[in-house]
Amino acid sequence: MIATFTVRTNGPACHEITGKIAEWLAAEDASDGVLTLMVRHTSCSLLIQENADPDVQVDLLNWLQRLAPPADHLSMRWITHRYEGPDDMPAHLKAAVLPVSLGIPVASGRMMLGRWQGIYLVEHRATPHDREVAACFQRA
Amino acid sequence: MIATFTVRTNGPACHEITGKIAEWLAAEDASDGVLTLMVRHTSCSLLIQENADPDVQVDLLNWLQRLAPPADHLSMRWITHRYEGPDDMPAHLKAAVLPVSLGIPVASGRMMLGRWQGIYLVEHRATPHDREVAACFQRA
Amino acid sequence: MIATFTVRTNGPACHEITGKIAEWLAAEDASDGVLTLMVRHTSCSLLIQENADPDVQVDLLNWLQRLAPPADHLSMRWITHRYEGPDDMPAHLKAAVLPVSLGIPVASGRMMLGRWQGIYLVEHRATPHDREVAACFQRA
Repeated sequence: MIATFTVRTNGPACHEITGKIAEWLAAEDASDGVLTLMVRHTSCSLLIQENADPDVQVDLLNWLQRLAPPADHLSMRWITHRYEGPDDMPAHLKAAVLPVSLGIPVASGRMMLGRWQGIYLVEHRATPHDREVAACFQRA
Repeated sequence: MIATFTVRTNGPACHEITGKIAEWLAAEDASDGVLTLMVRHTSCSLLIQENADPDVQVDLLNWLQRLAPPADHLSMRWITHRYEGPDDMPAHLKAAVLPVSLGIPVASGRMMLGRWQGIYLVEHRATPHDREVAACFQRA
Repeated sequence: MIATFTVRTNGPACHEITGKIAEWLAAEDASDGVLTLMVRHTSCSLLIQENADPDVQVDLLNWLQRLAPPADHLSMRWITHRYEGPDDMPAHLKAAVLPVSLGIPVASGRMMLGRWQGIYLVEHRATPHDREVAACFQRA
C-alpha cells in the first residue's frame, strides 16, 4: 500500500500533514502495522512535533536559522555550495539533522501518535516548492 | 505484533531500554524482520548510542544543553514558547534533532545492533515524566 | 530478506552506497515494500543527501566539525570521554543528530528516492574503519 503526498510550500514553514495521512490510512482500511514516510528531497524535512502551540514552530524555525545561518552570514563564509543562493547549503544542513524518514506504528488503522504529536513537512528553502512525501503502509 | 513500553524519567538522562525490548522479541518468538520504535512525545527522544562508557551519556547531555540552552539563558531571549518553564522549548528543539523513531533489522529474533550499541530513551525535560515507546515487529 | 553491507572508511567522508543497495534489491527481485537500513556503529551515520555537487559533502563535513569540534578544541574542554583521542566523543555527538536508521519506500523494486537523493555512510572518525550497514527489505 504505497502513496505519494504532495505539499506546496512558500518559504521556511512547518506544514502539518497528519490529517491527510490519517484519512488515507482510514480509506485503505489499514489494520495493525507500520507506516513509513520519506521525503523525496534534500532541502526539506519530515518532523513529528508539538501540534498545540504554533509558537513551537516559530521558535524551531528561528533556532534552525541560528544553527545553520544563510551563506551570506559572516560566520558562514566558508560555505562553497552556493548554486541557488544563500539559503541553498543551509537547507541541506538542516535536512541532515532533521528526519528524512519516519516509522510510525499503526494500531487498528490509527497511527500510535501521542496526544500532542503532529506530522509536519518542514520547508528549509526560501522559494516556493512542490514537495513529495512517499508513504508505505505494511501490515504487521 | 505491537507493544508499548513505559519509562519513568526524572530529569535529563539516558535510560537504556535494550534489554526490555530484546526480552519482548524473544518472548514473542520473533524471527527475521524489522522492529520499529517510536516515542509518543515531543520533548524526549529515542537514541542508539554507545553502551560501554557512561561518560558518553554525560557528554551528550551537556552538549545538547549547549546546542539548545534553557530559555532563561541570555542567548535564548528570542524564545517565545515558555508555557512550562525554561526547559520547555529547548526540549522540543532537542527532540527535533534526535530520533523520534528507529528502524532496527532483526535476524533470528535478535536485533542486529552492533556490539557497542544500546537503545536509549533520552529525557529532555526537568520534571518527572512517564514516557511511552510504541513498538511494532514485522516479519520480513 | 536481510543483508549486510560493508564500507571501508579512512577519515571523515561521505561514502555513497545507493548503487550497491539498488543492485541488491534488483537481484532479490524486490517488489513493493520498505527497505530499512541501520548502521551498526555509534561513531558514523547514514544519510540521504544531494548526489549532484560534491561540495555539498565538503560543506556538510565542515559544518559538523563546527557543531561538534574535536575535544582538544578550547570550546570542548568539558568533554570527559576521551579514550580514543579528540575525535572520539565528537563522533558520538555527530552520530546522535545524523540518522542511524532509514526507512525507504520501494515501488516495483526501486527505491522511491528523489532525483537528487543519494544514500551515504558518513564516517566521523579519523582512523580507518570497516563499517557495517544492516539491511532488510519487507514486501508491503
